[in-house]
Amino acid sequence: MAHTEHRACIEACDACAAACDHCSTACLAESRVADMKDCIRMDIDCAALCRLASGAMARGSAHVQAICALCARICDACADECGRHEYDHCKRCADACRACAKECRAMA
Amino acid sequence: MAHTEHRACIEACDACAAACDHCSTACLAESRVADMKDCIRMDIDCAALCRLASGAMARGSAHVQAICALCARICDACADECGRHEYDHCKRCADACRACAKECRAMA
Amino acid sequence: MAHTEHRACIEACDACAAACDHCSTACLAESRVADMKDCIRMDIDCAALCRLASGAMARGSAHVQAICALCARICDACADECGRHEYDHCKRCADACRACAKECRAMA
Amino acid sequence: MAHTEHRACIEACDACAAACDHCSTACLAESRVADMKDCIRMDIDCAALCRLASGAMARGSAHVQAICALCARICDACADECGRHEYDHCKRCADACRACAKECRAMA
Repeated sequence: MAHTEHRACIEACDACAAACDHCSTACLAESRVADMKDCIRMDIDCAALCRLASGAMARGSAHVQAICALCARICDACADECGRHEYDHCKRCADACRACAKECRAMA
Repeated sequence: MAHTEHRACIEACDACAAACDHCSTACLAESRVADMKDCIRMDIDCAALCRLASGAMARGSAHVQAICALCARICDACADECGRHEYDHCKRCADACRACAKECRAMA
Repeated sequence: MAHTEHRACIEACDACAAACDHCSTACLAESRVADMKDCIRMDIDCAALCRLASGAMARGSAHVQAICALCARICDACADECGRHEYDHCKRCADACRACAKECRAMA
Repeated sequence: MAHTEHRACIEACDACAAACDHCSTACLAESRVADMKDCIRMDIDCAALCRLASGAMARGSAHVQAICALCARICDACADECGRHEYDHCKRCADACRACAKECRAMA
């Protein structure tokens, strides 16, 4: 069953989406928000892909591999960007992105 | 921090979205799919609302209360429909919907 | 047929989602980005609701009225915030939000 | 400006998402719903990707090319499946998928 088989990756995607959404909001609240533009943009993209991938896996979509491959790539980019910043929310987001990229790559 | 404060409800929404997405696919695979039309439709609506609510909470949206109120209502409707069927995926989905509705109501 | 009946509101939601998404990115690129935080947050919420409402109408969801009622409310809030700023992208976004709120209110 | 540059593809994605969502609901209402399972599944995937691609273009995302490439591929698959059925909603959906795939391929 798709739902059970894919559980680890679904949970990694959900955790990553939440970390990205939280990071985007936290970046907007920083005094140096002007330095965080790329991070906010990446967070928005990454959260969208992670939620789409999570749903595709839960439905056992025929396109799970291609979707997870793209999700891994966008998680990598978001981890790279978040990894450049010292804020806790960025560090936690980078960790969530790397964990999600790893699970998605195993699926793809 | 929005992300941490809302964690229980975010996790209930994510679990409910996955249960609904899985239930819709499993309903489509049943031999009595013609009896499962309303269930499939409810599952699709409920998964969409749960993922939107999850993201709104993670971002600490100004509209969290109104969104969670609507999510609770749609979870109730999905739980009622899934509760009419004997399939395991329907029963598990109804449970996830009820748990999510309860968390969303506490937030709203 | 849901799809045809709801066409005007679906198109208003799609146009509003695109205007909000564009406005959020354009706000991030402004030198006064620190003044645009609330606008960016509203844009993200509003785009999410508009896309969800558009899909619910296209599917002829049983929850169209409640979803469109919430969408109208969030469009109003986004129009108010965007209406405070002089940027072209904010003005166009406010117009799209008002048009969408009107269509959604007629549906609700 | 991303929003204007990408307008044709954004509109093709929005039209395709609406056609897919409508087709999935219309398939569920057919007496031969058991024959329409793959079509419904494809419709759900395709609508999700089209809405995500539409938003990514409106935001001028750094990942537009990869997202549109995947969207084109999923539109192709949905067009193939819908093209096998004689229902009007399937034919219109197949047309919308082909038009969207063409625009997305030009973007990718």
